Amino acid sequence: MQRSTIREILKLTHKKNMISFAGGLPAPELFPLKRFGQALAQTIREDGAAALQYDVTEGYRPLKEFLCGWLRRRGLRCGPENMMLTNGSQQALDLLGKVLLDPGDTILVEDPTYLGALQAFNAYEPAYEAVPMDSEGLRVDEAAQAAARRTPAFAYLVPTFQNPSGVTMSVARRKAFLKIARRRGFPIVEDDPYGLLRFYGRETPSFYELAQGRGVIYLSTFSKILSPGIRLGFVVSEPAMITALVLAKQAADLQPNSLIQRAVNRYARGGFLDGHIPVIIRAYRERAGLMLRMMEKYFPRSVGWEEPAGGMFIWARLPAGASASRLFKMAVRQNVAYVAGSVFHACGGGDHTLRLNFTNSSPEQIREGIRRLGRLFTAEL
Amino acid sequence: MQRSTIREILKLTHKKNMISFAGGLPAPELFPLKRFGQALAQTIREDGAAALQYDVTEGYRPLKEFLCGWLRRRGLRCGPENMMLTNGSQQALDLLGKVLLDPGDTILVEDPTYLGALQAFNAYEPAYEAVPMDSEGLRVDEAAQAAARRTPAFAYLVPTFQNPSGVTMSVARRKAFLKIARRRGFPIVEDDPYGLLRFYGRETPSFYELAQGRGVIYLSTFSKILSPGIRLGFVVSEPAMITALVLAKQAADLQPNSLIQRAVNRYARGGFLDGHIPVIIRAYRERAGLMLRMMEKYFPRSVGWEEPAGGMFIWARLPAGASASRLFKMAVRQNVAYVAGSVFHACGGGDHTLRLNFTNSSPEQIREGIRRLGRLFTAEL
Repeated sequence: MQRSTIREILKLTHKKNMISFAGGLPAPELFPLKRFGQALAQTIREDGAAALQYDVTEGYRPLKEFLCGWLRRRGLRCGPENMMLTNGSQQALDLLGKVLLDPGDTILVEDPTYLGALQAFNAYEPAYEAVPMDSEGLRVDEAAQAAARRTPAFAYLVPTFQNPSGVTMSVARRKAFLKIARRRGFPIVEDDPYGLLRFYGRETPSFYELAQGRGVIYLSTFSKILSPGIRLGFVVSEPAMITALVLAKQAADLQPNSLIQRAVNRYARGGFLDGHIPVIIRAYRERAGLMLRMMEKYFPRSVGWEEPAGGMFIWARLPAGASASRLFKMAVRQNVAYVAGSVFHACGGGDHTLRLNFTNSSPEQIREGIRRLGRLFTAEL
Repeated sequence: MQRSTIREILKLTHKKNMISFAGGLPAPELFPLKRFGQALAQTIREDGAAALQYDVTEGYRPLKEFLCGWLRRRGLRCGPENMMLTNGSQQALDLLGKVLLDPGDTILVEDPTYLGALQAFNAYEPAYEAVPMDSEGLRVDEAAQAAARRTPAFAYLVPTFQNPSGVTMSVARRKAFLKIARRRGFPIVEDDPYGLLRFYGRETPSFYELAQGRGVIYLSTFSKILSPGIRLGFVVSEPAMITALVLAKQAADLQPNSLIQRAVNRYARGGFLDGHIPVIIRAYRERAGLMLRMMEKYFPRSVGWEEPAGGMFIWARLPAGASASRLFKMAVRQNVAYVAGSVFHACGGGDHTLRLNFTNSSPEQIREGIRRLGRLFTAEL
C-alpha cells in the first residue's frame, strides 16, 4: 500500500502562509460547535452510561430511524433493516471491498474518481475499468463496452458533484447505466457525500431511488454536513447486503461510536441538521462563485473548467501536453497548492488536469491564490 | 463470515430478568460520566473546530505523548513514532490481519483464545495452531513444536488475565516463548486489554518490555478502563510496523475520532484515568471474590476453576464428557447465562468449559445466578 498522496500533500500544505486548494476539508468556521456541544452534554446527562457502553454493530436504532425518515423526504425509501452506520463513508468502502472482492476482480469506476476509494479497494487487489466522463457524467456507451469486456464485481460511482471532477451525472445517464448493471447483474455502489450541498438547480434522483433500492448500495456521511472528525457515515442497501457488511464491521471494529451516534441523533432530531445545511450551502456557493470569477479573470484561455452546481471542487484542464504535477512544484514554491489530477485516475493519465477545493479557504485566500496560479499558468503554458 | 456467537448470546441475554454472566461488558455504573462529560465540554470549548475537523491517521499527537509517558511508568519504553490510535483493539486486530496475513498463513494462538480475534483474522483466511494452556499460561513446549511444524505469520497472545481463561502467563514462560519467536523469526501480537485490572500481586512484565519492543506488537484499549462505547485503543510497536498499520488504517477509515481523542487526552492528563482505575479494580475484585465464594458454595465438586488475579472472567471446567452448550440451553430457561467454551477454541474442542463474567452483574445477581447454576450443575453432572 502507498502512503496517501493527498494526505502527504496535506502535510506539505500545512506550511505557514500556504494557500491550499489541495485538501477536501470542510470550512471549520462553519462547524456547529455550540449546538453539537449541547447535544453531547445532553447525551451524557440523559442517556448516562448507555452512551459509553458497548452497543450493537449495525448502529443506534433511533438514529437509523431518524435517517430513514430524513432520506425518505429525498426519495430514498428505506427502513432500519436497510441501514448501518460506519466510521465515515471510508469504512463502508473498505467493508465493501472485504465483502464483494476477490483478488483480480474488476471494479468499474469513473475516470477520474475518488482517490480514497481506490486506496480502500486496492487492499483487496482488484483490477479497474476506468470509464471516461463528460459534462453529463459517466460515458454510458463506454461503460457498456467495459462491462461487456468483463462483468465487474461492482461499479463505484460518485454521481453527484463528483470528487474530483465536480460533475453530476444526468438522470438519463443514470437510467441507462442502471439498465446495464441490471442486464450484467452487478451492483452499483453510489457514494453520495456531497449531494446535499447543492448551489443551484433541482436534486437529481439517486441511483437508489431510481432502482427502488434493488442492486444499489448507497453511501453517505455526516463529514460534509456536520463534522468529519466525528467519523460517522451510513450505508443504505438491501437487508442481505447490510447483514454481510454488519458481519464485516463486527470483525473490523465491533461497532460505531455509541456516544457520537447518540449525540448526532439528538442534534439531528433537534432540527439543527436541516437548519445548518443551508448555512453551509450559502458559504460554499459564494466561495465557488468567487473562485470561478477569479479563474475567469486570471487563468489563461488555454485552461478549461466546468462550473460545479454544488459540492467542494472545481476541476480544471490544462492544454494537452501540460503537466499539472510539474506546475504543482512551482506553485508550492509560490505558497499555493492544488492536487494534480493524475492521482485520481485508476488506470493512469490525466496529468494535464487538476483539482481545486474552494471550501477551506477564505475569500481573500481564494483571490490571492488564484491570482498566483493565474500568473504561474500564464507564464508557463 | 459467521455472525458473532457472543453478540448473538448478548441479544438473548438482553431478555428481562436474565442474569447474564455471558458478555464481556464493563460495569456501566462505574463509567466516569461526569468527568468525561467535563472533558468533552472543555474540548469543544477550548479546541473548537479542530475537535470536529479531519486529523492525522496515526492519532492525535498530544494523546500519544501522554500514553507513552504513562506506558513508560509500566516499563514499556516507546515514543510517538512507536504508536498509533485505533477504534478499540478490535480494529488493530483487523489491520494486523490485513498487513501480516496471506491466505493459508498460520497464526499461533492460545487454546482457548479471544473469539473477536479469531473473527478479525478469519476474514484473511488463515490456519490456526491452537496451543494448550495451563495455570502458567501458554504451554511453551507445545508452542515450540507447533512453531517447528510451520513458522507462523505471527503469534496472537492475551498473556495477562486472558479472555476467556483468566490465566496470566508467567515471566519464565514469556521469556521462553520470546526465544522461540526470535529463533523462528515471527512477531508476537500481545493483546493487553485487562493488564491494568489487577486485583492481587505484582505486575508481570509485558512481552513488549521483555523484548525491549523488538518483534512485539502491543495492543491495548480504553474500553475496560474508561469506556468501550468511545472505541479508542492503541498499538505500540516498531516504527516500520506502525507505518504499515497507519497505511492500512488510512484505507480502512482515514483516522481515529478527533473529538474523542482530544477528550480522552484531557481526561487522562487531568489525572482522572489514574484516579479511576483503582475504583474499577476495587469493584471487580469484590465481584470476582463473591462469585468465587458462591461457586465454592454451590457448584458440585466435579466442576473446577482457577482464581483469576485480575481481569473480567472466571473459566470453569465441567467434568470430561459434560457439555457446556447443552447445559447453557437449560440455564437460559432458568434465566441465567454464560458462554459455552467451545467458541473460544480455534481448532475445536473445549465443550466441557465455560466462561463466567463477573463485572457486569450486581452482587445480588452474582449470588442468585451462581446459586441457579449450582443447582443445575448439581442436578445434571
